[in-house]
Amino acid sequence: MDKVNLKDKLARFSERWSPRVVGELNGQHVKLAKLEGEFVWHHHEHEDELFLVLEGTLTMRLRERDVVLAPGELFIVPRGVEHQPVAGEGEVHVLLFEPASTLNTGNLRNERTVDDLERL
Amino acid sequence: MDKVNLKDKLARFSERWSPRVVGELNGQHVKLAKLEGEFVWHHHEHEDELFLVLEGTLTMRLRERDVVLAPGELFIVPRGVEHQPVAGEGEVHVLLFEPASTLNTGNLRNERTVDDLERL
Repeated sequence: MDKVNLKDKLARFSERWSPRVVGELNGQHVKLAKLEGEFVWHHHEHEDELFLVLEGTLTMRLRERDVVLAPGELFIVPRGVEHQPVAGEGEVHVLLFEPASTLNTGNLRNERTVDDLERL
Repeated sequence: MDKVNLKDKLARFSERWSPRVVGELNGQHVKLAKLEGEFVWHHHEHEDELFLVLEGTLTMRLRERDVVLAPGELFIVPRGVEHQPVAGEGEVHVLLFEPASTLNTGNLRNERTVDDLERL
């Protein structure tokens, strides 16, 4: 029952592509992540995933088009839809909203998979 | 599958205390609302409710304390917890995450209840 200051939480970690949990409600997680460069193509079988850009520019590559997101813009990737998040120049900060069951690499398990999310 | 620009969506309505739905995922709604003055004390029996302040200052009155939220700060009101949102000076803009079943006045039904939420 404490408020969450997004900037304060972002200042507490530096790893890229390693989301931190900053809130939980109704079985969903609120996460913050720092992104740089490209992530892997993946999909989530059972989870819709929301990205809200806080800083920088994020390109969400879909198989048929790219969606470019600036700060203050959000995009929901429906379950089953393949996507590849690609950070624009420099570091990108995003807020994620998704079920607590969501794995960052979705249907894949590889060196970029983060199993135990840190809570801030 | 379109991106949502929060400022653009906010420019499309002016009513206070009348949330608009701008996204849906995993049975949850993403809403935007403009607030001014005080709302009613209420609680939600089955829903946790997230408020993220985008503009202005929001005071969330709880029975035992006040939580003051500036832009970039979020607060989750757990189900069952009585709360009264109070906007600071001028208009306050917030983003809400909550189950699609959530009624704005929670356990109350009165002149401030909004049954049919507009989707933007």
